[in-house]
Amino acid sequence: MLLLFSFIAGLISVISSIYFYLYVRKQAVGTPRMKEISDAIKEGAIAYLKREYKALAAVVIIIAIALYFFIGKETAIAYVFGSFCSALAGLIGMDVALKANVRTANAAKRGLNKAFSVGFYGGAVMGLTVVGLALMGICIVYYFFPNPELVLGFSFGASSLALFAKAGGGIYTKAADIGADLVGKIELNIPEDDPRNPAVIADNVGDNVGDVAGMGADLFDSYVASIVAAMILGTVYFKEMGALLPLILAAAGIFASIIGAYFVRARKNPSNSLNNGTYITCILFVIFSYLIINYLNISIGIFYALVSGLAVGIVIGLTSDYYTSTDKSPTLKTAEASKTGAAINILTGFSYGSISVLPPLIGIGIATIVSFYFAGLFGIAISSVGMLAITGMIVSADAYGPIVDNAKGIAEQSKLGKNVIRIADSLDEAGNTAKAITKGFAIGAAGLSVIALLSAYAEIVGIQVIDFMNPIVLTGALIGIALPPVFSALLILGVGKNAFRMVNEVRRQFKEIPGLLKGKAKPDYSKCVDIATKGALRELILPSSLAIIAPLVVGFVLGKYALGGFLVGSILSGLVFALMMANAGGLWDNAKKFIEEGNFGGKGSDAHKAAVIGDTVGDPFKDTAGPSINTFLVVMSLISSMFASLIAAHALIYS
Amino acid sequence: MLLLFSFIAGLISVISSIYFYLYVRKQAVGTPRMKEISDAIKEGAIAYLKREYKALAAVVIIIAIALYFFIGKETAIAYVFGSFCSALAGLIGMDVALKANVRTANAAKRGLNKAFSVGFYGGAVMGLTVVGLALMGICIVYYFFPNPELVLGFSFGASSLALFAKAGGGIYTKAADIGADLVGKIELNIPEDDPRNPAVIADNVGDNVGDVAGMGADLFDSYVASIVAAMILGTVYFKEMGALLPLILAAAGIFASIIGAYFVRARKNPSNSLNNGTYITCILFVIFSYLIINYLNISIGIFYALVSGLAVGIVIGLTSDYYTSTDKSPTLKTAEASKTGAAINILTGFSYGSISVLPPLIGIGIATIVSFYFAGLFGIAISSVGMLAITGMIVSADAYGPIVDNAKGIAEQSKLGKNVIRIADSLDEAGNTAKAITKGFAIGAAGLSVIALLSAYAEIVGIQVIDFMNPIVLTGALIGIALPPVFSALLILGVGKNAFRMVNEVRRQFKEIPGLLKGKAKPDYSKCVDIATKGALRELILPSSLAIIAPLVVGFVLGKYALGGFLVGSILSGLVFALMMANAGGLWDNAKKFIEEGNFGGKGSDAHKAAVIGDTVGDPFKDTAGPSINTFLVVMSLISSMFASLIAAHALIYS
Repeated sequence: MLLLFSFIAGLISVISSIYFYLYVRKQAVGTPRMKEISDAIKEGAIAYLKREYKALAAVVIIIAIALYFFIGKETAIAYVFGSFCSALAGLIGMDVALKANVRTANAAKRGLNKAFSVGFYGGAVMGLTVVGLALMGICIVYYFFPNPELVLGFSFGASSLALFAKAGGGIYTKAADIGADLVGKIELNIPEDDPRNPAVIADNVGDNVGDVAGMGADLFDSYVASIVAAMILGTVYFKEMGALLPLILAAAGIFASIIGAYFVRARKNPSNSLNNGTYITCILFVIFSYLIINYLNISIGIFYALVSGLAVGIVIGLTSDYYTSTDKSPTLKTAEASKTGAAINILTGFSYGSISVLPPLIGIGIATIVSFYFAGLFGIAISSVGMLAITGMIVSADAYGPIVDNAKGIAEQSKLGKNVIRIADSLDEAGNTAKAITKGFAIGAAGLSVIALLSAYAEIVGIQVIDFMNPIVLTGALIGIALPPVFSALLILGVGKNAFRMVNEVRRQFKEIPGLLKGKAKPDYSKCVDIATKGALRELILPSSLAIIAPLVVGFVLGKYALGGFLVGSILSGLVFALMMANAGGLWDNAKKFIEEGNFGGKGSDAHKAAVIGDTVGDPFKDTAGPSINTFLVVMSLISSMFASLIAAHALIYS
Repeated sequence: MLLLFSFIAGLISVISSIYFYLYVRKQAVGTPRMKEISDAIKEGAIAYLKREYKALAAVVIIIAIALYFFIGKETAIAYVFGSFCSALAGLIGMDVALKANVRTANAAKRGLNKAFSVGFYGGAVMGLTVVGLALMGICIVYYFFPNPELVLGFSFGASSLALFAKAGGGIYTKAADIGADLVGKIELNIPEDDPRNPAVIADNVGDNVGDVAGMGADLFDSYVASIVAAMILGTVYFKEMGALLPLILAAAGIFASIIGAYFVRARKNPSNSLNNGTYITCILFVIFSYLIINYLNISIGIFYALVSGLAVGIVIGLTSDYYTSTDKSPTLKTAEASKTGAAINILTGFSYGSISVLPPLIGIGIATIVSFYFAGLFGIAISSVGMLAITGMIVSADAYGPIVDNAKGIAEQSKLGKNVIRIADSLDEAGNTAKAITKGFAIGAAGLSVIALLSAYAEIVGIQVIDFMNPIVLTGALIGIALPPVFSALLILGVGKNAFRMVNEVRRQFKEIPGLLKGKAKPDYSKCVDIATKGALRELILPSSLAIIAPLVVGFVLGKYALGGFLVGSILSGLVFALMMANAGGLWDNAKKFIEEGNFGGKGSDAHKAAVIGDTVGDPFKDTAGPSINTFLVVMSLISSMFASLIAAHALIYS
């Protein structure tokens, strides 16, 4: 009965997203030139997805076979199903984003309100699809395999897909970006987004690949992980009711998100509209969950745990906002530091990024204590469910960003006139703020989820303490803390190598295609997309193998206690690096924008050149490495939990 | 008897250092021009030390009074004595370094061997003074207060001094460096080390302040901390013998270092000579300690623990060497990346720096497991003693670096001719390699020491486990991991602010002193020294307060378990950041040097400009923030141990 209720909530979410989808689709595309640009982006995105999904399919099959033999049939099936659901959500999100961007640009001719609606409803399709498919998927798996530990497979499917989507998309998008800029802007002196540049479409595709599909897969992943962790711990303390409660609370969050999304209407300030939607969703969710907990006659402590998670989500979002906004001191000081050169700009941004990790970590700590105090280990898991329950609304607001960003680009390239571009600009600004907040939110959410997964791991493997006075545990932790920096370093080096390939291809096309620079011939866009995609997949092999192999090696060699320490270590340093990189990257980006607005010498000044270097350093920080760390942590936690029994039985030492 | 033996070892070390000191002093100073430069540096250094020691005296008195009231008379006395011994060692080391630099330059006229001897013996004075005074000091305190917990006060005195010397010196030296370069090289286009630049002496002083006095105080600090931690744990397991054993092993290390130092002779390659000295010291130390452990009839497990610590020290040194040498791939690839601009240079260096943390951390982990397996918690403390026992030799080789670096500068400024400069150059190169290895060694040593101190803390406060499944402990750890990045950020921002003051002063002097730029008037060197010193002390207030206040707040608010988690968290992230910053900084520096040797376009090329930006980012990483993290960790660990009983009794929650 309760399971059905949750399933229906997921279904309603998907139906609502179809409603929004149809709304977007029936809008007019606009001029033929707009259609042309939009088709080129779409073509590139399809090329990217085709290749990515082909590679993914191979990986999924191999892992599924391994899971079948080592863990069991059910886990293997759940795994394939999980990666399918996440891929489907990504596909739908990309599809609507590619439709919504050009239609938003066209709607901007009819004013801010109309354009905002098209952009936001486009985002809402992604948001509601993600949570809808995730919750339906979990319900289906749990219906057929009524044991939460088997649902881990579903979660692992989602997270291995997220690793590809987020890290691979991140390598792809930054390589395309750097490749387009280095040859186009710097060597040949043609403007940004110029259609003569063979990498321009790859670059546009990248925005969708990284920001829409990547972020969606990332939050799909955290969302599922937090629910599964809560189901496992819930079963321990409250039997079946404990497994169902997280599902019902997630359902409450979905209803709150749908209503919140309907309430989003553009008024004067699109940024406020988005924030209002989030606040309404939060308030509704608190009310709904209070009613549910009362109705089901469950301890009110669970409710407090839930609210503490939601509150810390907001704290983290506000911190990110403070450290990356152009009207706050960190960004202003970094912009000012650009006057003394690139090195000081980088040092200043890096420093503020480092300082910015403190408030979120204290917030997560307090949420952990509060939720544990009121509801034990299950409470910690519930607080992460509380934080992630509003994912539907968060992803909607986030996916809005790249849609209006693309819309702005299309408006500029199609020369839609000053007024339209001004509207697109103000839509875009709201998107940037939403994006910074979501990034912080995603990291915090993943943090709470992996802490909950850690408890689930300990529960499954049967350890009561993870004692750091034990040298084996400490050694696990020493290895664990090293991995997030090593993982991000591999991704960043991958971006560099892939950008190098792009640069060579763009140079080749300008040399070999006659008349390209003069605009008399068309560049081979899809070749660039193809190279960036292939390269990104290749650079992904090492870091993603690390995510899968490292916990298994630590577990089977040093045993289950060391693996516990390993997970703690990786979570701790992962949170630090993820927050630092995301916030420093955002800060450098906005410091550059602040200078471009005419401050400290404006565009073209020495300060601006210095700020551009800072921004380029920050790009792979905030768009590749930083946000991929979440997924990395979730994958390692899930691997550890799935192999927990095998490790406990077969580890070399201390098993 | 055994105590007396250790005391005498310390005394012999000091006597040997006096012997080396007299050797250095009796060498000829050289031409009047050389004397002039050397006097100016000395004058600046004295100005720096005067102001620093004045400020320090005030801080020491305040802290001593606080210790007197909160902890007890004995701790307060030991504290003052500890800071006195460390300050004395720093003073002697600086004095001999300032004498040895000019004499090394002069000796270079008579060939490599002679010059090498003067430079190395100058360094050996520092090395043997540090370990001699440290061991004598501990013996004296333990003689009067035969309780290892009271020796903690001595250790805290040494580490609060190290915080000033290392972090303050680091802010000072980088501010002087950047100030001299920005106005001199970039704005006015006069060469580096030009005597017309008012900041040039401040810059030269900085080399001694940061690299000689700072590194000496840092290793004095780690050396004492490792011995004290071992004494505390030893007393628990083996009564008085357990407290004495670390002292005797330290004595064995001192004898090995003295003999090793005598054996250092320049042959064709000064770098090999230094390394041979280190290897001889290691072998002798292993033999001596084996004999002692056999003679005293102590379990052979202790010996294995000792050797494991020594071995990991070497692993860490070699890792640093690999990641920062110009003939190895990381530095070469970073140099090559400079061709695509500053941003890619920085991203590449940052990535390799991040990867470089893995081998040392695995090494520390293995040493911890091995030593615990053979000798329990006491074994972990003994392994850190084993690593630090050869400190005498390590500091000797390290202090050699800035001496020959200064000698090279003096030789160039005094125009001693090509041949002499060539010799000074080859001396300097050997110094750079030694420096990179020592930096890694210092971080590893501090890491093992703070792990030992953590066990000592747990012992004193009476907790058996530090369990990360406990949310209070986890929260402590979440706050703990944030502090090393926040601390380094504060130092880096401090360097920026202080450099800004220097730039203004240098500009002012060029504007207000008539004829300065034409070389017709003398600049006011000491004013620059004074401003950099005052500024460094001011920028030190916030980070050093953080070191003292943070553990007390966590302890008294969240209790002794949370404080345990806090220490673990700070150790874990501290090691990552310290290693990453030290290695990335060294790597950028050498990538720049590699380009300056004529590769990838050589000096003045775009690649070189990019590499210079990377080097400037790396400067405060490797010379200010990175190496100060060690001391930061030791200070926090000692504070926690000293206030352990008070915290256990009075904490708000969970006491």
